[in-house]
Amino acid sequence: MRPLRRLAVLLVLVLLPAVAWALDPPRFPGPQPRARQGANGVGGYEYETRYFRQRLDHFSFPGVGDEDEAAAFFQQRYLVGRGGGWAGPGGPIFFYCGNEGDIAWFAANSGLVWEAAPRFAALVVFAEHRYYGESMPFGSKAKAYNNSKSLAYLTAEQAIADFAVLLADLKRNLSAEGSPVVLFGGSYGGMLAAWMRLKYPHVAVGALASSAPILQFEDIVPSTIFYDLVSDDFQRESLSCFQTIKDSWRVLDEQGNGQDGLLKLSKTFHLCQTLKTSGDLSDWLSSAYSYLGMVDYPIPSEFLMPLPANPIKEVCRNIDSQPEGTSILERIYAGVNVYYNYTGTVDCFDLNDDPHGMGGWDWQACTEMVMPMSYSENRSMYPPYKFNYASYADNCIKSYGVRPRPRWITTEFGGHNITMVLEKFGSNIIFFNGLLDPWSGGGSTSHRFAPRDSGGPRLAGKPERIRTEDHIWLVIGLLWGERGALPACGCQGLLSILRKLPSLRSKYVVSEIKGLHLQMPSASHNGCCVMKNEDQRRYRGYWADVGVVPYCK
Amino acid sequence: MRPLRRLAVLLVLVLLPAVAWALDPPRFPGPQPRARQGANGVGGYEYETRYFRQRLDHFSFPGVGDEDEAAAFFQQRYLVGRGGGWAGPGGPIFFYCGNEGDIAWFAANSGLVWEAAPRFAALVVFAEHRYYGESMPFGSKAKAYNNSKSLAYLTAEQAIADFAVLLADLKRNLSAEGSPVVLFGGSYGGMLAAWMRLKYPHVAVGALASSAPILQFEDIVPSTIFYDLVSDDFQRESLSCFQTIKDSWRVLDEQGNGQDGLLKLSKTFHLCQTLKTSGDLSDWLSSAYSYLGMVDYPIPSEFLMPLPANPIKEVCRNIDSQPEGTSILERIYAGVNVYYNYTGTVDCFDLNDDPHGMGGWDWQACTEMVMPMSYSENRSMYPPYKFNYASYADNCIKSYGVRPRPRWITTEFGGHNITMVLEKFGSNIIFFNGLLDPWSGGGSTSHRFAPRDSGGPRLAGKPERIRTEDHIWLVIGLLWGERGALPACGCQGLLSILRKLPSLRSKYVVSEIKGLHLQMPSASHNGCCVMKNEDQRRYRGYWADVGVVPYCK
Repeated sequence: MRPLRRLAVLLVLVLLPAVAWALDPPRFPGPQPRARQGANGVGGYEYETRYFRQRLDHFSFPGVGDEDEAAAFFQQRYLVGRGGGWAGPGGPIFFYCGNEGDIAWFAANSGLVWEAAPRFAALVVFAEHRYYGESMPFGSKAKAYNNSKSLAYLTAEQAIADFAVLLADLKRNLSAEGSPVVLFGGSYGGMLAAWMRLKYPHVAVGALASSAPILQFEDIVPSTIFYDLVSDDFQRESLSCFQTIKDSWRVLDEQGNGQDGLLKLSKTFHLCQTLKTSGDLSDWLSSAYSYLGMVDYPIPSEFLMPLPANPIKEVCRNIDSQPEGTSILERIYAGVNVYYNYTGTVDCFDLNDDPHGMGGWDWQACTEMVMPMSYSENRSMYPPYKFNYASYADNCIKSYGVRPRPRWITTEFGGHNITMVLEKFGSNIIFFNGLLDPWSGGGSTSHRFAPRDSGGPRLAGKPERIRTEDHIWLVIGLLWGERGALPACGCQGLLSILRKLPSLRSKYVVSEIKGLHLQMPSASHNGCCVMKNEDQRRYRGYWADVGVVPYCK
Repeated sequence: MRPLRRLAVLLVLVLLPAVAWALDPPRFPGPQPRARQGANGVGGYEYETRYFRQRLDHFSFPGVGDEDEAAAFFQQRYLVGRGGGWAGPGGPIFFYCGNEGDIAWFAANSGLVWEAAPRFAALVVFAEHRYYGESMPFGSKAKAYNNSKSLAYLTAEQAIADFAVLLADLKRNLSAEGSPVVLFGGSYGGMLAAWMRLKYPHVAVGALASSAPILQFEDIVPSTIFYDLVSDDFQRESLSCFQTIKDSWRVLDEQGNGQDGLLKLSKTFHLCQTLKTSGDLSDWLSSAYSYLGMVDYPIPSEFLMPLPANPIKEVCRNIDSQPEGTSILERIYAGVNVYYNYTGTVDCFDLNDDPHGMGGWDWQACTEMVMPMSYSENRSMYPPYKFNYASYADNCIKSYGVRPRPRWITTEFGGHNITMVLEKFGSNIIFFNGLLDPWSGGGSTSHRFAPRDSGGPRLAGKPERIRTEDHIWLVIGLLWGERGALPACGCQGLLSILRKLPSLRSKYVVSEIKGLHLQMPSASHNGCCVMKNEDQRRYRGYWADVGVVPYCK
């Protein structure tokens, strides 16, 4: 069994390790094309699409001779909420830090921002990350992704500077220099939000960083943690399911090496084309497991793929419940079918299928986002693999013509002593980490902000108290912290709180909190919540990324 | 009188406004060549000169094909204190953020760092700023300064990233990852130190920023403040002196426009060559006044030029004490002679004389360091002039082929709401501003940390208390704060405190202080102190830049 290659074609949804060099981390996946099509608002949240002339390189000064408009600038897309709920100059701005994908898709799946905004009379802004969606330098994606020279400016620091410059311009144009800005972001976007609050405290008063693995660098957390947590999620549902998957890699490898092995494997797994290597198949499988760990919501979702509620439970049920005598690989197929073919409409699987066609993250993983990923021997259900930086770097040079800088992120943003920084220096950063989420392993989880069981201000009961004594963005924290106390974990309770929460239009008290972290002990990636059907539809996006509602079994 | 041009040749010591486009701020001046010659230690402070392979562009990723060693990297010089006083891994590191000049010169003139270090068992490091001294990209100054393309990476952000990368590497090599780093810097270097503490809190626990005009951008402080403060310094010594200077510009202009005017002026001022314009002469004069404001020390110094104690007083004495009937311009000549020819060895003045040959700051002033500077009408002794950004920018494009970004510094580092950031977010930054220093106008002076008259821990009396209850770098603050209570403002008192201060070797408690600012109401640029001869020699560099000892009349 070789976990050391991967499907270069499946960059978006299947970017999980397989090849050594490509042991770049699973990430918050790219945009669903459907969200892109003419969407001008989702779930009742209306926005205007705008473009900002952004500088390609903030940190160097080209001569005027080299300041060619098409080379030195690009049009950054951003979305501005409509509806007139903003308090106007002085009123808060909720700013979503775009991830590695189409911003319309994040806007469609970050209901929290839209939902909370009117209650704070906040202006909503979603800013697209450079090199993604429509925000392409050099005029087109083909030109932006042409080579290492054109991709050189695809970095987190440049992206955060984009946000700062955009915000400065926006505030100036709105005469809103005094408006407090609260940053939002999930996954990579959550990392950006947290880092931006640390680097640009004069721009933003706080950040809500959901599932943001800011510690998944160097040796800060064990390199096995992500896949261990995925494995835990499976083991939690079924020990036999976990064991079947753990056993399957060897079987798959053996069969792949046998006579007509690749043909047989291709048939077992209903692939459209015959496999070239068994590694391609194991990549495809391991990706499914990892993404299942990230979207193991207790409600049906279409976030990555159309999935039932509690999809890992479903996968394991399929694996475990096959008739006696069913082979391990047939069980595995029955399991992953839940992920890749829940709707039952797929006749055969095309491992070359790349509906999203996005490679930006691969560049980022080969430059600064070097997140070591290994498979542990015992706790993991994956075949043991130890991250090897030398081969990782070699492959980056071969594939992208670029040399990674594995220590740059911690030099620039910290990490090793992040607790000290968060406690003594940084403030107003809420880290949300659902502990079922495999990304929580690299998240900042050293502090707990436990939902209160009794006593203390309770949003539902004493909204006035929040309004007068607490401050704009702690309210956001309490709002979600409060969920832990919701009866039967019903979202109705939360929604009713949201609805009752008085407008904070007249009160933007901003104080500071040090090292605030919210952990939902059993929440999955970005959390989720059981909802009635109508709310489920309306608030679908609500819980998807930044929304973190307790997971209830 | 035209204040709108300047001597392009006098970039270092005479970079004060005259020409509209060149209304870049007076700055902490460049290195004295003499300090460069084989200096391996000054005033008994020994150091080792080392070089670090530094990356030219931290914020973009060139492809490996473009990663030519000579183009993508440069050798950054840094000095490491010798003497074995460092406590070793875990012991503090005092890190001087190099300014726009040769680092050996700053090491020679920053005695505070050297003097305080042994008392904290700290390792001393002086890091040179890229594009200055020996730290030249592209292999040589000629190549580094060749054009706007080669100069593109001369920015504060890149320089601060250099420091962060160097420190990370240094700490790793010394197994000193746990060592607290305290940043030091004066003038532009002080700005870097303060900004670095804000941007890299995970790298440095605090910063001592002396005479750091971080607010001298956009409209945060009045654009007239610098020259108003210089004028105040003259007016404080003598109203008639102030008035003579104020009247001189018109006379100078009139004479320059008269028949043989330039020839006459050249004779009056003992110039080696005949003036081409009277503007060249007014530039030369106004530079002298501004630098006098910055080095108005109460002791003789050779910091910029060989000067007597209280040089402004001397200048004004010369201006005021000429026999009745002496013309205004002859008085002016007698005055500036103190600055340009205190040793009396100069036969004639060469306005083209440029002993330092450094143009880096001009590039910085034409890119991100856009500090608007005007001459006010009444308070100033200079002819009225209002900063005009359009002509400033035009001239940057003409002269350097580069377009300034006047709003970038405040976007990147803040400024408009710096008080909020310093109070609520940033911590452990001591801003020293002697209020006689013209740079104090753009400094962060909104908070006072008054020396205690009674009560509270007093270093001299209760060293144990400091050692056990306070923390490494507050001690530095107290140390200087304490000076306010020294009898008769004698430096002996301070020195005795320094000598009594017990080693803090075993105690590196680091806690936080918000928005700490030290102001010496009557201290001149970077402060000074009356010393006995032997101490004066030994501690000469002590007070020069970072040392801030109260000025006593």
